[in-house]
Amino acid sequence: MTVTVSKSHLVVAQNASGRNMNVPVYQITAHRPGPKVYIQSSIHGAEVQGNVVIYHLINKLKALQVAGEIILVPNCNPVGTNIKAGEYTLGRFDPVNGTNWNRGYFYDEQRVLAFADAVDDGLPISEIKQQFRTFWQQAIAEKLSSPWGLGLAQQLNLKLQTMAADADIVLDLHNGPVSTRHIYIPEYARDAAQHFNIEHCIFIPNVFAGALDEATFCPWWTLQDRLSERFGQPVDLGVEAMTLEMGSQEVVQFAEGEQDADSILAYLGQRGVIEQCPYQPKRMRRVAVHLRDYKTLYTDFGGMVEYCAAPGVPVKQGEPLARVLNIDELDNDTATFTLRAPCDLIPILHFPSASVLSGTQLYKVFTHYQQIS
Amino acid sequence: MTVTVSKSHLVVAQNASGRNMNVPVYQITAHRPGPKVYIQSSIHGAEVQGNVVIYHLINKLKALQVAGEIILVPNCNPVGTNIKAGEYTLGRFDPVNGTNWNRGYFYDEQRVLAFADAVDDGLPISEIKQQFRTFWQQAIAEKLSSPWGLGLAQQLNLKLQTMAADADIVLDLHNGPVSTRHIYIPEYARDAAQHFNIEHCIFIPNVFAGALDEATFCPWWTLQDRLSERFGQPVDLGVEAMTLEMGSQEVVQFAEGEQDADSILAYLGQRGVIEQCPYQPKRMRRVAVHLRDYKTLYTDFGGMVEYCAAPGVPVKQGEPLARVLNIDELDNDTATFTLRAPCDLIPILHFPSASVLSGTQLYKVFTHYQQIS
Amino acid sequence: MTVTVSKSHLVVAQNASGRNMNVPVYQITAHRPGPKVYIQSSIHGAEVQGNVVIYHLINKLKALQVAGEIILVPNCNPVGTNIKAGEYTLGRFDPVNGTNWNRGYFYDEQRVLAFADAVDDGLPISEIKQQFRTFWQQAIAEKLSSPWGLGLAQQLNLKLQTMAADADIVLDLHNGPVSTRHIYIPEYARDAAQHFNIEHCIFIPNVFAGALDEATFCPWWTLQDRLSERFGQPVDLGVEAMTLEMGSQEVVQFAEGEQDADSILAYLGQRGVIEQCPYQPKRMRRVAVHLRDYKTLYTDFGGMVEYCAAPGVPVKQGEPLARVLNIDELDNDTATFTLRAPCDLIPILHFPSASVLSGTQLYKVFTHYQQIS
Amino acid sequence: MTVTVSKSHLVVAQNASGRNMNVPVYQITAHRPGPKVYIQSSIHGAEVQGNVVIYHLINKLKALQVAGEIILVPNCNPVGTNIKAGEYTLGRFDPVNGTNWNRGYFYDEQRVLAFADAVDDGLPISEIKQQFRTFWQQAIAEKLSSPWGLGLAQQLNLKLQTMAADADIVLDLHNGPVSTRHIYIPEYARDAAQHFNIEHCIFIPNVFAGALDEATFCPWWTLQDRLSERFGQPVDLGVEAMTLEMGSQEVVQFAEGEQDADSILAYLGQRGVIEQCPYQPKRMRRVAVHLRDYKTLYTDFGGMVEYCAAPGVPVKQGEPLARVLNIDELDNDTATFTLRAPCDLIPILHFPSASVLSGTQLYKVFTHYQQIS
Repeated sequence: MTVTVSKSHLVVAQNASGRNMNVPVYQITAHRPGPKVYIQSSIHGAEVQGNVVIYHLINKLKALQVAGEIILVPNCNPVGTNIKAGEYTLGRFDPVNGTNWNRGYFYDEQRVLAFADAVDDGLPISEIKQQFRTFWQQAIAEKLSSPWGLGLAQQLNLKLQTMAADADIVLDLHNGPVSTRHIYIPEYARDAAQHFNIEHCIFIPNVFAGALDEATFCPWWTLQDRLSERFGQPVDLGVEAMTLEMGSQEVVQFAEGEQDADSILAYLGQRGVIEQCPYQPKRMRRVAVHLRDYKTLYTDFGGMVEYCAAPGVPVKQGEPLARVLNIDELDNDTATFTLRAPCDLIPILHFPSASVLSGTQLYKVFTHYQQIS
Repeated sequence: MTVTVSKSHLVVAQNASGRNMNVPVYQITAHRPGPKVYIQSSIHGAEVQGNVVIYHLINKLKALQVAGEIILVPNCNPVGTNIKAGEYTLGRFDPVNGTNWNRGYFYDEQRVLAFADAVDDGLPISEIKQQFRTFWQQAIAEKLSSPWGLGLAQQLNLKLQTMAADADIVLDLHNGPVSTRHIYIPEYARDAAQHFNIEHCIFIPNVFAGALDEATFCPWWTLQDRLSERFGQPVDLGVEAMTLEMGSQEVVQFAEGEQDADSILAYLGQRGVIEQCPYQPKRMRRVAVHLRDYKTLYTDFGGMVEYCAAPGVPVKQGEPLARVLNIDELDNDTATFTLRAPCDLIPILHFPSASVLSGTQLYKVFTHYQQIS
Repeated sequence: MTVTVSKSHLVVAQNASGRNMNVPVYQITAHRPGPKVYIQSSIHGAEVQGNVVIYHLINKLKALQVAGEIILVPNCNPVGTNIKAGEYTLGRFDPVNGTNWNRGYFYDEQRVLAFADAVDDGLPISEIKQQFRTFWQQAIAEKLSSPWGLGLAQQLNLKLQTMAADADIVLDLHNGPVSTRHIYIPEYARDAAQHFNIEHCIFIPNVFAGALDEATFCPWWTLQDRLSERFGQPVDLGVEAMTLEMGSQEVVQFAEGEQDADSILAYLGQRGVIEQCPYQPKRMRRVAVHLRDYKTLYTDFGGMVEYCAAPGVPVKQGEPLARVLNIDELDNDTATFTLRAPCDLIPILHFPSASVLSGTQLYKVFTHYQQIS
Repeated sequence: MTVTVSKSHLVVAQNASGRNMNVPVYQITAHRPGPKVYIQSSIHGAEVQGNVVIYHLINKLKALQVAGEIILVPNCNPVGTNIKAGEYTLGRFDPVNGTNWNRGYFYDEQRVLAFADAVDDGLPISEIKQQFRTFWQQAIAEKLSSPWGLGLAQQLNLKLQTMAADADIVLDLHNGPVSTRHIYIPEYARDAAQHFNIEHCIFIPNVFAGALDEATFCPWWTLQDRLSERFGQPVDLGVEAMTLEMGSQEVVQFAEGEQDADSILAYLGQRGVIEQCPYQPKRMRRVAVHLRDYKTLYTDFGGMVEYCAAPGVPVKQGEPLARVLNIDELDNDTATFTLRAPCDLIPILHFPSASVLSGTQLYKVFTHYQQIS
């Protein structure tokens, strides 16, 4: 084995019984230098497939020529994983207050800009990066020690972010409701789309909305832009963060998980984390959209629906997306109606229940997409 | 059209806003006499496919030679349908107190026996049936008017049962979690198994546990047995009640629903509700078990599982049912383990979430099943 | 200190992360022989005040002359305690399937009768008791090891019952929704009502509905009756089990908890568990009802209500219990209506929310009550 | 009667049964001109006391000399009111996705500034106000008709905001968890604090976080500031919006509701909505804080707590706020610990359950408060 695998547990919360709740932290340390990688899964408790991916990653990494260090945190939200509401897992938000478990990471643009303007311009890039990491981890630590305390989701997020903050590569493993695989990639790193075996890619701008990928790339992106401006030449800090959506929530599939692991290893190979990497990106069709063209289709009706369009399969304008049953009109012509695609699109995911209230996110779809491979 | 379709609405509850909640009641009246049929769907709010079946039934019945009368009540639980907990419908039980929506129907064995012993033995069977219906509806009405009131689920159940109580045939349309189609049939009516196009049949004894099918057949079965004993000859009262499980919950599928409707029409044709019925039971494989051989497999572990066995596909003893991931041992040989079939079986349904606590109903399975066609 | 206090932890479940969930078990062992006592609290997760009572009991018992052995299990349901749904604890039932956490204890009347008929009639009562304990614990153990497994609530219940099964005194500490203190006592032990400082007492018959108190006294009561009959003379086996309702759920109050502890100590003193017990039952008003006179008043309306009657304060027939607001009629005379007491009664508890659907348990009340001290 | 009371119903959503959900809208029209007032209650479903306040308001307004028009919308969120999770109402957020029901109102600062810069500076203020109302209602209408639809909470919010948008006074009636009465007032209208009979006042800045009060005052405040700047003299547009917290959620109290109604009438009298108003603001102690001094105290522990400090009663630094029980240490000195006030403060509200996870909002408190009457 060319790597050392060690395991520890990090306390992230305390439950109503007063018991500590912790997450397992697997650390793979290589004998040669290289990038730092941070991978977590299941911040949304029902999105469990990433745990299987991490299982395969650990197994496979043991036999590979790793350079650097990889931190893997499966099941990183022990609260969300364990809230059942009926047979399903109520994993997307804190059941006490509705807070999305993936919106409490730290970012503060002004502090990045202040750092960028103050840092010694004679320093080598590697040193600037190191100083920024220290600066940023300090900022997270300050936030964590707020004198009046913090909410549960934010405490959890910041403890995880502390581990992620000095990584060069951050991968956050999620699932959609009923979903085909897709990936969020910051626009500046769009070449990464070619390195994963994921057909559907979303390029996102430098805007922070609370998630881990944004909390990772926004500061580096902002720093990079400001330093480029200040130094009068392009600065590339080389930090990437992506959210990978590995199919549908509430599902564990070991075979698919192995393919997902291979896809991640192919990307890590391209980024120098694995030397002589036996996993290569597949030659395959890939399509991409800008985030603004990744649309959410909300219903303006409530009712019972059949999903006529399968995630991942293109739909032409006017073709059916859903067929809706009207239980009060079963004896006449208005018993059903069909919701049709407002434009050409690719459905990426749909709501997981046949029963919807008005204002439900029925589908999320690619529009104005382009083929990139 | 040989039938008249009429529609009304029955108030079954009042919500916290003080508003009435009602169910649609479709009544199909034929121009010639025949059996009375009562069909309802979605007493469990997430089990919505039966609504589609009723949609197809109404459509098709308009063109058929119906004898008698058919009451159809889709979406018969407006409370359960509308309780969301996360993206799914919390439809199996009252969220206030956990009461299963399908356990509050009325039955009282002693009252049946008292009726059986008191009824004039010179009456024709049809007259005895009619007297018993009146007697039984009176008993339900008394229960409904309990001086201290009744719980929500029981109020709902009894209002529905009032409509079902004078039917000759009662069909309650349900779904399993992730499930293949199956049907519960009282042992005395086991020939009905040959008339539905449903591969998996469960024969249930004369035991009341609160559900509508039992609440219908238990009194008639008990009455039938007592009268047979008293009169010294077999008495057949000809009332049947079945629970049909039309696949998986949280799913609406129009095409499958049409097949389910055809299957019900084939049965109704056999029972004289449809004359010259163009729908015939299929020649197909059918397997059956006694209720005691329909086993629930509970986990003694908590964790994340892949369901390796598909509902409806036989599994041999020792073959895998589930593969379980242990997130704290991903770095060693105990990272996963496999749960195996304790005997030959057919999985009929499994839990719909990959995340389970100990004591979860992982699978329900046929054991000691026999082929009946 | 005349007693030894030891502490251990019993695993009762495993969560979806695959982690063990355990309960603390405090064992107080006296240096002199005496009865065995088992006390648990919070089987319903939101009913937490009993934990404070156990805290005070442990503290006080250290300084008392205890005879025998006392097992105390606070927070005995680590699953129920930790299910939040909004800001409150969803502690009464398993969120997966609605199973009440206090209905899965073991009882089998036929097995008791078989034992009673088979036991050697020459044995001393103490020996019969010992044999029955062994017999009964064996029956529980068999149930627990059911080959197809058991549901979560039942597994939890049976593991707790295993500890309770050889006790002479079993106290199950609960809370009502918004409630005054009250206690359930088996009819054969009605003198115990005089030994607790609890104003409202309910005498319950030998009927099993799944709760721990019933699961404890039903077998002993049945055995006692059968042996009395068989031996032709009264047999008193001296085992008692009670459910104590220590005020309202969702509340922790240390001062009240100390009074509750004193009340329990007074009872234990009367039963010989504490010698020279400094705590004596208070001279106070006590009223009692038979279980059949402890009525639940359900609403037949939905709406928003003010609770006009305070738990514990007698209400005359016709006096107001609740005032209901009709939001659709605020501009006219039907804006409100008043629900009145159908007879003289003492409200013991009421629903904890102002918003009710039809079929809500609005009040539970004593009717036909009698003063017993 | 000097006023006309009319009633209509506005459809705000459709449920999973496909049924419309509506809110009652009461419109009080005076015979003489005056300000327009909009009052709603229960946007958070468990906060029901405001409905009683509106009941009293309607009753009393019938007998008063009203000028202008008053719209009252009780129970304005029929979805949130009817989601039960256990015995309580899960009313703060959409159970499907966690969205707070009070965060989806419309505001767009850039559009306000564009209007302010474009409006004809020769117009009288009243005409500018009228033009802005039209402009703003158009903006809300555009948002409501988004081509891909909107989420349920936002649809609801915007339909309500459409009614509120042309009011001069907007009052949003809420409740805290366990809470004393308090009120949020925009800084520019701080004199309003003297006109309500509410002891605790919070002055909030011109920052939009999604709530109805902000969505009302932010555009007018911003417009006012920009016009003042542009015209070189103070412009007062005279529009006020406040959130009133009428005590604790899950509670209906008719008598307190009448006092709350009198308090609102006193304010409306001061603002010219009621002529010769018999209700006058009380001479009473009032204290106020800036929003930045209204602190949320989060726990860093999980456990069971007694709330030692009552809402509304000042606490000195170091005095106890909560006492926490540690169920695993009941046999030793660490069985309990006390959480103390970090500074002088007034607790305004506390969490309504004794069971808390780490990161729970235990108290919200006034710090650095000042007496203002």
